[in-house]
Amino acid sequence: MKHTKVRDLLNSTTTLQEVNAKGWVRTFRNNQFIALNDGSTINNIQCVVDFENTPEETLKRITTGAAVSVIGTLVESKGAGQKYEIQVNKLEILGDSDAEKFPMQPKKHSLEFLRENAHLRVRTNAFGAIMRVRSVLSYAVHSYFQQKGFVYVNTPIITGADAEGAGEMFQVTSLPLDNLPKNEEGNIDFKKDFFGKHTNLTVSGQLEGETFAMALGQIYTFGPTFRAENSNTSRHLAEFWMIEPEVAFNDLDDNMDLAEDFIQYVIKYALDNCKDDLKFLEGRLLEEEKSKPQAERSEMALLEKLNFVLENNFKRVSYTEAIDILRDSTPNKKKKFQYLINEWGADLQSEHERFLVEKHFKCPVILYDYPANIKAFYMRLNDNTEPGRETVRAMDILFPGIGEIVGGSEREERYDVLVEKMEKLGIDKEELYWYLDTRRFGSATHAGFGLGFERLVLFVTGMTNIRDVIPFPRTPGSAEF
Amino acid sequence: MKHTKVRDLLNSTTTLQEVNAKGWVRTFRNNQFIALNDGSTINNIQCVVDFENTPEETLKRITTGAAVSVIGTLVESKGAGQKYEIQVNKLEILGDSDAEKFPMQPKKHSLEFLRENAHLRVRTNAFGAIMRVRSVLSYAVHSYFQQKGFVYVNTPIITGADAEGAGEMFQVTSLPLDNLPKNEEGNIDFKKDFFGKHTNLTVSGQLEGETFAMALGQIYTFGPTFRAENSNTSRHLAEFWMIEPEVAFNDLDDNMDLAEDFIQYVIKYALDNCKDDLKFLEGRLLEEEKSKPQAERSEMALLEKLNFVLENNFKRVSYTEAIDILRDSTPNKKKKFQYLINEWGADLQSEHERFLVEKHFKCPVILYDYPANIKAFYMRLNDNTEPGRETVRAMDILFPGIGEIVGGSEREERYDVLVEKMEKLGIDKEELYWYLDTRRFGSATHAGFGLGFERLVLFVTGMTNIRDVIPFPRTPGSAEF
Repeated sequence: MKHTKVRDLLNSTTTLQEVNAKGWVRTFRNNQFIALNDGSTINNIQCVVDFENTPEETLKRITTGAAVSVIGTLVESKGAGQKYEIQVNKLEILGDSDAEKFPMQPKKHSLEFLRENAHLRVRTNAFGAIMRVRSVLSYAVHSYFQQKGFVYVNTPIITGADAEGAGEMFQVTSLPLDNLPKNEEGNIDFKKDFFGKHTNLTVSGQLEGETFAMALGQIYTFGPTFRAENSNTSRHLAEFWMIEPEVAFNDLDDNMDLAEDFIQYVIKYALDNCKDDLKFLEGRLLEEEKSKPQAERSEMALLEKLNFVLENNFKRVSYTEAIDILRDSTPNKKKKFQYLINEWGADLQSEHERFLVEKHFKCPVILYDYPANIKAFYMRLNDNTEPGRETVRAMDILFPGIGEIVGGSEREERYDVLVEKMEKLGIDKEELYWYLDTRRFGSATHAGFGLGFERLVLFVTGMTNIRDVIPFPRTPGSAEF
Repeated sequence: MKHTKVRDLLNSTTTLQEVNAKGWVRTFRNNQFIALNDGSTINNIQCVVDFENTPEETLKRITTGAAVSVIGTLVESKGAGQKYEIQVNKLEILGDSDAEKFPMQPKKHSLEFLRENAHLRVRTNAFGAIMRVRSVLSYAVHSYFQQKGFVYVNTPIITGADAEGAGEMFQVTSLPLDNLPKNEEGNIDFKKDFFGKHTNLTVSGQLEGETFAMALGQIYTFGPTFRAENSNTSRHLAEFWMIEPEVAFNDLDDNMDLAEDFIQYVIKYALDNCKDDLKFLEGRLLEEEKSKPQAERSEMALLEKLNFVLENNFKRVSYTEAIDILRDSTPNKKKKFQYLINEWGADLQSEHERFLVEKHFKCPVILYDYPANIKAFYMRLNDNTEPGRETVRAMDILFPGIGEIVGGSEREERYDVLVEKMEKLGIDKEELYWYLDTRRFGSATHAGFGLGFERLVLFVTGMTNIRDVIPFPRTPGSAEF
């Protein structure tokens, strides 16, 4: 007979004469009660075994982690916490799990231990929930953009361009490393490499995305990006997924509107579609924070925090206003900041961003109009700025507990201005001829942003280490599995 | 004022007093008629310029590729082929396009020329249509699986495992290639590399996907995969996107059902949501085939072919039956095959697959139960097979004009049998300990498949070269943009 998913059994509207469930044993109590989970929901279904008529040998094999198939009657549960349970008539052990050896025993494991067992941690309640929420969030991303008529673009992962300067890149090669071919000058002969040139892993699909936006109007990317940076922090990964929409004819205000609407949509989608998982994660976070001093605990519980983001506009603050606020702030006056803010032009550090978001405004903040010389070459220079205080139409969105979650800008659409900037920064115009073509032929105002998907998942799940919201994290010194 | 997308203007149900459209000029006829496109649809909107009251200088700047903004009245069109057009009151040139230099002039370009201009080809009708269809197809992929409760899993792109054997891999490193560190034995010291070991780009997310399926029940991946193979054909890319569902408790029959249902769903989704684009691509294909001899032309027009796949079950044929058919076939008897089929055990070449699909069955075919020794180590050995004629529960789906579009199998769930197979093939058990853990702890029947997304896009768009259905193709000697 066909088996039924646990979620569907728990959502049943009637009792059922005969059902089949397949899944993994989470716990087995009193030689009688199996808590069975099949990954379709965080909730287990209780399966009541007729232990008097089940061979002792079979009962012994019902261990945590074992795969079993049960056939029985779906009846109203006498126990608390569930509407239905299965009275088991037939039980089959599909795959054993040696209780002495199975690492995921039903007890508290450290997150570090679980990371080392990333192939098994997804069998725990917390990581099952995180991965389901991550999946639903990524679908929300696609749904949002597709409903609005955006075209999904797969920008290249392997790239011959290394002029973007968004970060350190990984090299990709199929040359034999222990016997690299040399050219006449004695340098490595990349002409003999697979692509006939030196190639890297992409740090961003933005530039290629722009070429598509200037034809299809509204596009978005959603794919892996890479940074070969030795950042061993709880907010950085060497391999992460990024979402980059780009819209022709949008200016910076449109861009802020889009980013805010988008983020609110995907969070609402998760709230609507992941209730049980988020409820569980809220409890997990409360539990985790019990061991912290009161001052370090979250002010809001997880669901409250997510609803807060939905119900409140993001605060839009210019860089210049932010500098004024920071300069006059208590931590700046009392020299509590590691980097003191003395003057306009300073690059903001994460301590400043956190102060603005978590202490001053207490809500998501969009900072915009940054000094030109601390931002990327492709950003639109503001008209009518004071000489020496030029700003660009950049924006960063800062989230409580996460810091920067979005970075974007209106793009410099004027060919001459863009070329001048590239020359000043020593960026190779020949190599980026195709990018300049978007300004040579039918250029127009356009804008876009990048959102680090794992930071969004962090925020929504209430986890605090980015390694816990991606299936198999890649970090300095670690590329297991 | 806010501008309106061309698609929405063309779908308007009434005339409108004042509208604003922004887009790119496709053609400008008689100093009066602009065909304006903004990428939201393959259809242009006709904008009628009041040339008597427009400065000569402005009229000269309305060239193919220029970005313009028009404000005017949406009126019923007197011309054929469109319901509405815009009577222009105000026209603004946003970005010029020098007619002498813009490569995408409104004339026939070769596909090869367009590939060399991949950043601009998306401004043509054909490539706009292909990229929209690609986008809608990828959304259909997510919709199908998410509606069925599958969890989307981002398996790693950079991998430390190179034991899978699915193909040649690209190496990833951040070591300085011109000054590689050596260890005491004089070998390259990968301990000094970013991840502390030798790493590659993934060829498949299947093995990692299996670990998640054995916890979450039903999962799918959809991400880039890589092959460093020197295959300069119209069916191979070095970087391509793959979809890999994996389902716990599914056997090979369930796997075939899933693959067939999935493919039919996404094709139907494209037919329902990309009518105009597919209609255009059908015409393009007819045009292209006019230059071919009758015998090489498609038997069905594009839409007819797509509907045929929806309305007919895929033919399921065992490898053994297929060998019998091929051995007795006319091309085999007349020695027209390059590789003649003499006996059971032969690996099928693309000429044989094409014969089965295009000549013999004339419909999509699922071949299953292949000889064990021509298939991968993780495939489920069939019970009760003759010694020397062992088969595995593998399946390949073959499509007319495309060849293999899906490869999948029921997986070997028995720890001992799997280990024995790995030992026989010299596959490192230590390195794949995490994969073996799925069989050590709560193993169960499971199955999955991989579908090369670009081959699906090829089939649906009627294009014949895989480089034309991905934004920026990566092939031997080519990683431009």
